[in-house]
Amino acid sequence: MPRYDFASDNTAPATPEAMAALIAANSGFAAGYGSDAISARAADLVRAMLDADAEVRFVASGTAANAICLAALCRPFESVLAHEHAHVCTDEAGAPGLFGHGLGLTPLPGASGKIDPDSLSASLAVPDISHRQPVAALSLTNATEYGTVYSTAELRALIAPVRARGYGVHLDGARLANATAAGFDLTEIRTLGVDLLVVGGTKAGMPPTEAVVIFERALARRFDARLKQGGQLPSKGRFFAAPFIGMLEHGAFVRHATHANAMAKRLAALSPFRVTHPVQSNAGFVEMDEGRLAALHAAGWFAYRFLDNSVRFMCSWATTESAVDELGEALHRISG
Amino acid sequence: MPRYDFASDNTAPATPEAMAALIAANSGFAAGYGSDAISARAADLVRAMLDADAEVRFVASGTAANAICLAALCRPFESVLAHEHAHVCTDEAGAPGLFGHGLGLTPLPGASGKIDPDSLSASLAVPDISHRQPVAALSLTNATEYGTVYSTAELRALIAPVRARGYGVHLDGARLANATAAGFDLTEIRTLGVDLLVVGGTKAGMPPTEAVVIFERALARRFDARLKQGGQLPSKGRFFAAPFIGMLEHGAFVRHATHANAMAKRLAALSPFRVTHPVQSNAGFVEMDEGRLAALHAAGWFAYRFLDNSVRFMCSWATTESAVDELGEALHRISG
Amino acid sequence: MPRYDFASDNTAPATPEAMAALIAANSGFAAGYGSDAISARAADLVRAMLDADAEVRFVASGTAANAICLAALCRPFESVLAHEHAHVCTDEAGAPGLFGHGLGLTPLPGASGKIDPDSLSASLAVPDISHRQPVAALSLTNATEYGTVYSTAELRALIAPVRARGYGVHLDGARLANATAAGFDLTEIRTLGVDLLVVGGTKAGMPPTEAVVIFERALARRFDARLKQGGQLPSKGRFFAAPFIGMLEHGAFVRHATHANAMAKRLAALSPFRVTHPVQSNAGFVEMDEGRLAALHAAGWFAYRFLDNSVRFMCSWATTESAVDELGEALHRISG
Amino acid sequence: MPRYDFASDNTAPATPEAMAALIAANSGFAAGYGSDAISARAADLVRAMLDADAEVRFVASGTAANAICLAALCRPFESVLAHEHAHVCTDEAGAPGLFGHGLGLTPLPGASGKIDPDSLSASLAVPDISHRQPVAALSLTNATEYGTVYSTAELRALIAPVRARGYGVHLDGARLANATAAGFDLTEIRTLGVDLLVVGGTKAGMPPTEAVVIFERALARRFDARLKQGGQLPSKGRFFAAPFIGMLEHGAFVRHATHANAMAKRLAALSPFRVTHPVQSNAGFVEMDEGRLAALHAAGWFAYRFLDNSVRFMCSWATTESAVDELGEALHRISG
Repeated sequence: MPRYDFASDNTAPATPEAMAALIAANSGFAAGYGSDAISARAADLVRAMLDADAEVRFVASGTAANAICLAALCRPFESVLAHEHAHVCTDEAGAPGLFGHGLGLTPLPGASGKIDPDSLSASLAVPDISHRQPVAALSLTNATEYGTVYSTAELRALIAPVRARGYGVHLDGARLANATAAGFDLTEIRTLGVDLLVVGGTKAGMPPTEAVVIFERALARRFDARLKQGGQLPSKGRFFAAPFIGMLEHGAFVRHATHANAMAKRLAALSPFRVTHPVQSNAGFVEMDEGRLAALHAAGWFAYRFLDNSVRFMCSWATTESAVDELGEALHRISG
Repeated sequence: MPRYDFASDNTAPATPEAMAALIAANSGFAAGYGSDAISARAADLVRAMLDADAEVRFVASGTAANAICLAALCRPFESVLAHEHAHVCTDEAGAPGLFGHGLGLTPLPGASGKIDPDSLSASLAVPDISHRQPVAALSLTNATEYGTVYSTAELRALIAPVRARGYGVHLDGARLANATAAGFDLTEIRTLGVDLLVVGGTKAGMPPTEAVVIFERALARRFDARLKQGGQLPSKGRFFAAPFIGMLEHGAFVRHATHANAMAKRLAALSPFRVTHPVQSNAGFVEMDEGRLAALHAAGWFAYRFLDNSVRFMCSWATTESAVDELGEALHRISG
Repeated sequence: MPRYDFASDNTAPATPEAMAALIAANSGFAAGYGSDAISARAADLVRAMLDADAEVRFVASGTAANAICLAALCRPFESVLAHEHAHVCTDEAGAPGLFGHGLGLTPLPGASGKIDPDSLSASLAVPDISHRQPVAALSLTNATEYGTVYSTAELRALIAPVRARGYGVHLDGARLANATAAGFDLTEIRTLGVDLLVVGGTKAGMPPTEAVVIFERALARRFDARLKQGGQLPSKGRFFAAPFIGMLEHGAFVRHATHANAMAKRLAALSPFRVTHPVQSNAGFVEMDEGRLAALHAAGWFAYRFLDNSVRFMCSWATTESAVDELGEALHRISG
Repeated sequence: MPRYDFASDNTAPATPEAMAALIAANSGFAAGYGSDAISARAADLVRAMLDADAEVRFVASGTAANAICLAALCRPFESVLAHEHAHVCTDEAGAPGLFGHGLGLTPLPGASGKIDPDSLSASLAVPDISHRQPVAALSLTNATEYGTVYSTAELRALIAPVRARGYGVHLDGARLANATAAGFDLTEIRTLGVDLLVVGGTKAGMPPTEAVVIFERALARRFDARLKQGGQLPSKGRFFAAPFIGMLEHGAFVRHATHANAMAKRLAALSPFRVTHPVQSNAGFVEMDEGRLAALHAAGWFAYRFLDNSVRFMCSWATTESAVDELGEALHRISG
């Protein structure tokens, strides 16, 4: 049986804290569609974490959450700037186009998953042409697909020219926990000019759930109808809210991410293969040829070749030191 | 604090069997996106229940599941026949139109939620006109929104002329458990000519989950890409599959629905208000004026006025006899 | 060969004035996509006709023009109020849903094609529910599908409560020329609170063209990109603009419509069948059974049975008195 | 007043032959929506030109025609292979995504507008992944955006592996006349495995019109409803059909294109700037820096910098030898 420990951070089970909260929430009757007390409590905890007076919704899918946010910021004949390897561009099967009715994605380059500021400026400087889809929003990801972490200063620099033009900003926080564990200050987000944020629960060690945070209140109008039409207004809302209670009440969200990040650093330290991106959160990328990747697979370890041709190893709250060491040994065996 | 016991069957918590399976599934690492052993096991159990060799997927949202099925059966310039009060027509915020890119819904009348066969025939007899959206599919619901249950003979009669024209058929089984508990034979579905079935988990007492069953294999091609684009290919698939294991392994699915149906009958029997629809599954509808509904709300009981102007009381696996009796007393108090 | 004189007002050829302008415009090279001098001149004439400082675009399709306008006023999870027999509801093959990504249409009743104010009020009073598509706009048609003509007072009364809620207003003027010829004052539109108007060229006797008038300037931003994505930003824009010059420069627009309206009145006056709607513009509707309609068709006259079960006869600029009289005689022959 | 002679081939007026046919068609009443005798006659002529028994429709917009064809070949969660600089990828404001509900475009490289066969093979070899939009169709353009012309052998080589996988093929023939004039044999198209073809009328010198040719009859079912929903089923269909009669009856279609192609060659021959792409049809591309382009604009000549950074000059049926020579002199003046 192959080992999926490092295939992704979504192959891990849910944390004890998240599960305990889920089980606790499963008691008695509750109002539907997010209007229950558990959803309210979880929203309060998200607001407290962000130190922001924002609307919060809990949904089942990060892909849908991102796509719905982009649809809220960008009309179909406009486009969203995003890193060329951002999840919205490469791994959502065109969800932004479906939810956004054909909205465009303008991919931007940048080392290790971070958008190159010059390419952003160049895109913003392109004059509106009716034959192309002009820019209407920026989508950012923190931590990035390559495990690097934007500083607030870096985000501020990317966002400023976008907001100066009146465009919207989306932040995909599928791995926001890992960014936070790496030093990113969540309470700064409200000062950055982010309109819509998706806080990842799933990859942070929860049962499937994501929090959509609406900083820009004008976007909150009829947002539940927007979610309902997109299949993301769960009737039994408490099941998507409760895990956030378990993870946020006593710091498990960041604590587990800190562990995941440490495991990635441990793996990088013992990798015999060249590490291709700075290890700042829970991902390790290495240079590996096809033969060696096949040998790794044959040895029972599942790992993906990523968009930049590196091989990716993801760590999670559930990654153990011994698993890292076992993988390290396997890497050494095949590296010869 | 108001009581939501009868507001809907999705206000109930999840059953012990479903939760136990969920907890059991939360162990070790697992492959993502439905390719894990738990999803395979749950799919086997669904197939066994239906005695059918069909593809099965587990998704988070019934609204999305229905809309995605309709989009698979009907092109944007075509339309779907459905009961005028079917969930897809009235309670999904236009999800079929979003997922189906503007596909049309042609509402059909019929007593107590069942499509009137003559109105179906009349719709099928309308000649194709390029200015209208011609019919391409039929959407059925069992149990219906009014708690009535189609017999296989009734479904066969509705489906036959539809299939004779080569059109597709979708069955919304949000309350299929209740239909089954009322005598509907699940193993007959594969003989009816249903292309796509949604088996409700949520209303049957599970944490949020629905099973999409693909009887028509030609529709299965790239269905996972279809789901992914729609935000319904969960990375941690086991959380949506496991509850089905708990509910199907030892008959809890039907056993709980049998209880829910019995509670609805009990409520109807002691209602001082006229019951407006045959009580065949877990819903009771009564005639009640605005003043009395307000009094009921004031007494702390939440209930909705439905599309036909009746007031609806839904029972679930968690509805207790004593709750029914308490509600019955409240109804008597306000009926005077 | 059957006669299409009365089948619709789009079976007529283009007027001499429109054709002369088209031919005159076909000279030399011109900038594309509506940026040419002829488009500018035609836009000026439309503005003058409406006595309004509005943006004007010329497009090929009324169906697309209406759908694009609704998409500009209503998000996919919202809906548009319209008469149940309005063209957008019944004769555009779901174009509003395609261009509007699943936006809803809420059909309203009303005698002879005019929206019943009470039904409008009732729809506006429905509280927002996330499971339904809440109202975001009103679509009006003048002259209506039944040839009746709203007065400005009637429109004002329908629009006022809509605007009071901040919702948008679209006016389908496919037969605005006929309404004008019937006394509707075009210079009042700018005072009514209409955001987007489509001025019909095709049914008014032009080669295919429609003018989209943007009264609400906030909607004009990137409207050309909206049109381009919808296939309605013609490269050779002058061909869609020029006919308006021919028709508006010297009053042919209203003069021809006045004739068409007179022909409808003449036809109604000599009809042996009961006239079912007030003849206020260029349409005559009569009560006729199936046998007699078949006899009419057999006699070589094409006419449609309409949505209210009446049989419709449309007059146009090209309808001659003798044709009306011939049809009148045919009607008498079959009415016996 | 700037000169638009070379800005595009859509800045030219319509040819005498097309206009004469339009004027001739403008007589008497005619059935609507393409069911008239003129549309039938024009369709026959298109079929004769292609020597193919195909369905033909006449529409107003090439952008819409292309997008509707792609939507017919590719589901929203799939993608279309196309040259990275194809009109569908770069100049239609996202129309394929709007009409195709978020369908993907997979851009392929290739010199001078022709798809590189190796990149096509590589794209076809990518395994289906549910997170990406798998390929479902190929879109080709002849003549290409760079004025080069595919031979039938080249097209056959590109199409064969696509059809071998059961995928669809669209041919954008906005400049098919120019390809034909360059030696491309139109009667070979039916042997190539093209499902849907758009024959450009507008750029060939007609008033706005395009012919959609449906080779694959299975796609013809309800195609008129598809067109109607997309705003491309013109009520006065004869206006879009007639120009094809004028252009096809006596060879004007190819004759005018032959002239346009010759003008491009003449221009290339006298260009003091390096010509950047083979001049095979009616386009000339040259290398020119910003300063010189500005000087050209200042001298009153409109020309675009294209996607490959060349400056483009388009010729048309209306381009005169003297205009070419005047432009040549202007180019020499600024080239110093």
